Amino acid sequence: MSPDVPRGLAGVVVTDTELGDVRGREGFYHYRQYSAVELARTRTFEDVWHLMHHGTLPDAAARAEFTARTAAVRAAPPEVLAALPAVARATAAAGPLAGLRTALSLAGAVAGFAPLYDLTPERRADDALAACALVPTLVTALHRLGQGLEPVAPRADLPHAANYLYMLTGEEPDPARARAIEQYLMSTIDHGFNSSTFTARVIASTGADLAACLTGAIGALSGPLHGGAPSRALDTLEAIGTPDRIDAWLRERVLAGERLMGFGHRVYRTEDPRSRLLKEVARGFGGPLVDFAVAVEERAEAILAELKPGRELHINVEFFAGVVMELCGLPRTMFTPTFAVARVVGWSANILEQAADSKIIRPAARYVGPPPPVPVPAA
Amino acid sequence: MSPDVPRGLAGVVVTDTELGDVRGREGFYHYRQYSAVELARTRTFEDVWHLMHHGTLPDAAARAEFTARTAAVRAAPPEVLAALPAVARATAAAGPLAGLRTALSLAGAVAGFAPLYDLTPERRADDALAACALVPTLVTALHRLGQGLEPVAPRADLPHAANYLYMLTGEEPDPARARAIEQYLMSTIDHGFNSSTFTARVIASTGADLAACLTGAIGALSGPLHGGAPSRALDTLEAIGTPDRIDAWLRERVLAGERLMGFGHRVYRTEDPRSRLLKEVARGFGGPLVDFAVAVEERAEAILAELKPGRELHINVEFFAGVVMELCGLPRTMFTPTFAVARVVGWSANILEQAADSKIIRPAARYVGPPPPVPVPAA
Repeated sequence: MSPDVPRGLAGVVVTDTELGDVRGREGFYHYRQYSAVELARTRTFEDVWHLMHHGTLPDAAARAEFTARTAAVRAAPPEVLAALPAVARATAAAGPLAGLRTALSLAGAVAGFAPLYDLTPERRADDALAACALVPTLVTALHRLGQGLEPVAPRADLPHAANYLYMLTGEEPDPARARAIEQYLMSTIDHGFNSSTFTARVIASTGADLAACLTGAIGALSGPLHGGAPSRALDTLEAIGTPDRIDAWLRERVLAGERLMGFGHRVYRTEDPRSRLLKEVARGFGGPLVDFAVAVEERAEAILAELKPGRELHINVEFFAGVVMELCGLPRTMFTPTFAVARVVGWSANILEQAADSKIIRPAARYVGPPPPVPVPAA
Repeated sequence: MSPDVPRGLAGVVVTDTELGDVRGREGFYHYRQYSAVELARTRTFEDVWHLMHHGTLPDAAARAEFTARTAAVRAAPPEVLAALPAVARATAAAGPLAGLRTALSLAGAVAGFAPLYDLTPERRADDALAACALVPTLVTALHRLGQGLEPVAPRADLPHAANYLYMLTGEEPDPARARAIEQYLMSTIDHGFNSSTFTARVIASTGADLAACLTGAIGALSGPLHGGAPSRALDTLEAIGTPDRIDAWLRERVLAGERLMGFGHRVYRTEDPRSRLLKEVARGFGGPLVDFAVAVEERAEAILAELKPGRELHINVEFFAGVVMELCGLPRTMFTPTFAVARVVGWSANILEQAADSKIIRPAARYVGPPPPVPVPAA
């Protein structure tokens, strides 16, 4: 029998990757060598998508070509559009990730996604591009149908992020909001190994089609232990209510040993670099919500340093991600689907990388029950 | 950094289990101490299902109660039934596992499967029971819709296996066929750790709902590297055609180094115990297909022993599983969905076991690209 590994495979390196890395002690993460935060400050979503899927940042000509290709495959096929009202109704209570899981499973079948094992790398990349282009269309259509509204067809003349907001509201977004959401999306495309990314890679290792891999990943993302929910940080802000209540509210929670939503991260021992970026983005808008969030952050850091010295509890990505999405007019039920709009690009990049490996991921379990065999008693 | 593990986690024990074990050298596998083959010979599908989900073989009263409970939740909810024609149309080309993946994702949302993390063990078991009861209904309805037929509603007075065949054809199956399929189903409920089972457990470890876990597992099962397809062994039989051609056909293939579909298994170095059982079941029917299959097996074993001495290549579960399903009148496109009808009980048992553990499965990856950071070039 092989040696044990830590529970939950914690810290166990199961694969090599060229996609990026998270350096928790340095407060730094990168996509293929480039600081993700610097990319988000200076590039477009399509640029980073191209980097993740094709390995390089595009030049002007490649950007134009890639952007046009992604825009051309945004529309949901008619069979999918026809089924979405039924999917929206059936998944209304279960929530938007159950809707996306179902709709993407269906859309992948309609799009003719074949087993990765049977495809050339070029065809795999085509399927990945199609899936990533389609996710914003699906989540916005499901959201609108849930509100009793008609889906809004994508516009090929808008960039990915602006088109996402357009499909949500039916109105062309103001450029500052579109850019803020684009920056949020870029900063959350990938972030090391996590359960959804690992799920996508395990399924990909069987040679299954891209929709099989992505529906599994969406399922894992929907798990409460997977991690964040940017709407929770806003709940914290609302629970505090007003600036004069910050100190009393935080002290009470910290002394009671409660977890503060929006604070702390498994990996970062410094400020989360995504938070720093998103705070910057939020400050670009200004206004009372931003001032209040900044004040809560400052007081929370001070109180945590006083009451939990040495713990290095900083705000995490949820905190200002929630603020930015609120400022951009996203309904809270769309916060996690918006995360999926970004992360599908990272999942797909991981799937493409895994598909280039021919080794199935298939570990073992140790039987620890009482020894077999015992005779089967008569029925 | 932690030490490496073998590629694909091969042989790496990632969890303990009380569900069972495969002993490849002994040609033996068991479910919770009981020989799976002996269970299949002497028990009902519902008995083994109860064993896997509740830990014990039921007595007569418990069997009656459990069988009634499973029968009561077989029907698809109206919202699911209403959506199935669209799902069947949209997934017709992609195949029945894409259809099941989509339909079960939808059905789980309608059934109100909540995150496992939020549920008591009793509620988790209820959801698992509902999912396992529903899978035969979904795969038969999708199959019939694909054939231009109306789905057949389940009958609560039939056992699980008989009702499965009934929903497929609309006619009460003859008892010998129903028993043969029941024995096939019992023998394939679980079989050690594999990629679909592991996928189900990774998703379960995030606390996601049962439909999220099962859609991921179905996705992994659809991968060509995951393993068998019982219809391939029948293709081999048909390619050979007649008994007089067996030797020449087999010798040519073996000498050309081709893989013989239906022979060889990753784990068993002896005869696959499932094959032995299913050969027994097939022989109970008799007839030319069975005689031919037995003759092919005998000649293939002799020729493999002669041409590949010491390789211990025996028939695997695909071989007589295909024969049994053919004898029972299942269309070949339903062979893999029928496997899913059995395996969903095993996946669910694994999910229930995983859900009792609070540790998320989240390994690590090693970045092996060129060192970051490099400055982001101007766009």
